[in-house]
Amino acid sequence: MKRTFFPLIAAALLVTCILVSWGRAQISHTTNQTSGRDAEIIAAVRAVLEAQKDAWNRGDIEGFMDGYERSPNIVFLSGDNVSRGWQTVHDRYQKNYNSREKMGTLEFSDLEVNVVSQDTAVMIGRWHLARANDEPHGRFTLIFRKTKQGWRIVHDHTSSAV
Amino acid sequence: MKRTFFPLIAAALLVTCILVSWGRAQISHTTNQTSGRDAEIIAAVRAVLEAQKDAWNRGDIEGFMDGYERSPNIVFLSGDNVSRGWQTVHDRYQKNYNSREKMGTLEFSDLEVNVVSQDTAVMIGRWHLARANDEPHGRFTLIFRKTKQGWRIVHDHTSSAV
Repeated sequence: MKRTFFPLIAAALLVTCILVSWGRAQISHTTNQTSGRDAEIIAAVRAVLEAQKDAWNRGDIEGFMDGYERSPNIVFLSGDNVSRGWQTVHDRYQKNYNSREKMGTLEFSDLEVNVVSQDTAVMIGRWHLARANDEPHGRFTLIFRKTKQGWRIVHDHTSSAV
Repeated sequence: MKRTFFPLIAAALLVTCILVSWGRAQISHTTNQTSGRDAEIIAAVRAVLEAQKDAWNRGDIEGFMDGYERSPNIVFLSGDNVSRGWQTVHDRYQKNYNSREKMGTLEFSDLEVNVVSQDTAVMIGRWHLARANDEPHGRFTLIFRKTKQGWRIVHDHTSSAV
């Protein structure tokens, strides 16, 4: 009677091995897809910036603000200031760029994206505003998070040439 | 003879259930520890900044630079400039702050840390330099990564009050 336990244990071990292998295969599959997913994330966050630029250049602050997550937790830093929350950032833009002349023509360049995880990416780049009387320009660091609405900016640090 | 397979299958299912439960328990254990780990990460990155401040205030640029990862991939942004790599960032500090007078006394305040993942954290804060003739100050965004040497800054965006 004792001998009947050997095939029983063997079968249990076999099932275990199959399950563990299957689990590892799933993990490996996920890892191998990362580079493809990174390319998708990079394209997605670049598209957000492209849409922001297009909105800005048709004088559409509301459309520009769609690039930011509609959350009270987002932060915008520049100079020695910090603005917190989508509404505050929105109102700051609306106040500082209250005419088509002040908005000028926005261009982004030297964009680089670093995919931190499947729901976080960091972008750096240059911004340049062509206006009738001046050309403000500088650099930015943007942190994007994947939200239910898609990739959105949750942290913006913008500096200007002095 | 066919009936002997029932206990065999039952045993296999039992082993499977135990393994799946154990796996879930491990995952749950990890999740529950997150807040405690976040507190550890926050303490670790704040300690890096504290050490940087102390090094700066004894005129020790080398010690200050220990806060940055010794990697050619780190970035430092300010104004309309970007510096890449530990050595470049080091040389920039050494050139711009080549005397005890220029270094002045550094203070950090309003520090906030956001733990993005177990190996990434974002800190924002204010910096202030007390010098004989001026008081430069502004904000910074720092991205920290957990390296073999501990938590280190891999991305620094610093802006100044205008």
